[in-house]
Amino acid sequence: MFGEFKPKLNDSHKEAKFVFLGNSSPTTQLSVLDQVPNAQLTVADTMDLWINIQRDELGELLRRIDGLVLNDSEAKLLAEDENLVRAGHAVRQMGPKFVVIKKGEHGAMFFSEHEMYVMPAYPTPQVLDPTGAGDSFAGGMMGHLAALGRFDPQALKEALAYGVITASFTVEDFSLDRLAGIDRNDLDRRIAEYKQMLSF
Amino acid sequence: MFGEFKPKLNDSHKEAKFVFLGNSSPTTQLSVLDQVPNAQLTVADTMDLWINIQRDELGELLRRIDGLVLNDSEAKLLAEDENLVRAGHAVRQMGPKFVVIKKGEHGAMFFSEHEMYVMPAYPTPQVLDPTGAGDSFAGGMMGHLAALGRFDPQALKEALAYGVITASFTVEDFSLDRLAGIDRNDLDRRIAEYKQMLSF
Repeated sequence: MFGEFKPKLNDSHKEAKFVFLGNSSPTTQLSVLDQVPNAQLTVADTMDLWINIQRDELGELLRRIDGLVLNDSEAKLLAEDENLVRAGHAVRQMGPKFVVIKKGEHGAMFFSEHEMYVMPAYPTPQVLDPTGAGDSFAGGMMGHLAALGRFDPQALKEALAYGVITASFTVEDFSLDRLAGIDRNDLDRRIAEYKQMLSF
Repeated sequence: MFGEFKPKLNDSHKEAKFVFLGNSSPTTQLSVLDQVPNAQLTVADTMDLWINIQRDELGELLRRIDGLVLNDSEAKLLAEDENLVRAGHAVRQMGPKFVVIKKGEHGAMFFSEHEMYVMPAYPTPQVLDPTGAGDSFAGGMMGHLAALGRFDPQALKEALAYGVITASFTVEDFSLDRLAGIDRNDLDRRIAEYKQMLSF
């Protein structure tokens, strides 16, 4: 079954410093993790299916990764707590150094041992299709960390903002059409606007 | 009927500079507005009932007030638009200089001619009862403006944050119990924490 797929990384991928384990079975994610011993930062996504049918394997994964990204309903399911603040802290105590809870059109929350914060979604008047918002959030976040080459608290906070803003472009058109039509300047301009929005 | 109640303000209330018209029929709100000719800032709340049965009177109110506070579903209903960003702008174009859309556990949005921003709710691990969150949001917002004695864009933004934080205390206990147990220092401490959360 798909859950038992164990990809073989090529030599270049094995040297990745910033590793994002996209949503697949914890068994598959663990097999990738085994092949990147030199990674400096490992972050995984997961979903309700794995929480329900591979909780033990997911538990092992959580003890081995630096960060976990999941959505609000998955966090509640995993932590068995309806309050997102408590759920985020509970998931973090399962192993990862930080947890990011994606709340769709309502933004994202961040949890580490010493920090907890929330960032709203960028309010766009044009929402055509939310498909891919979560994945492009993770891509924007990881891309910013890889570009910075660091993952201290300030870098992680900036990266969360880049995730939010990347996702805000994704939902403005179908598929990757909007992302394909923007460049770094568009991204940075919206980041600056978002930063201004949140300061008072 | 209740909608035709026309309160008589006493002389002291007639001199109010900062006036908040709580949620009641637009007819009632207009009758209060007529009695405060010297108000510097007038803000009203409304609800789906009045949007449905007193739309004309509500329209007249909107042309006479400075600000409107309403929740997300009401904004969509009034603007006949499912996108909150477009809905907020559309409601503002009905008359008020600014519109605040309350999104419950997801915070609030602000719209004026030159600005649009969103503020997330303060993430509290302890939510006992959301009753009164919207009203205490409005109270915190108006209280801050009245305390400052101004309502420029910066004051309005700070006031929105005070609204969010006042509401975050309200939901932590039943009735007014939590609000009754805090003082200005508690409020200001949480405001500082919130400000820090949102800066990156």
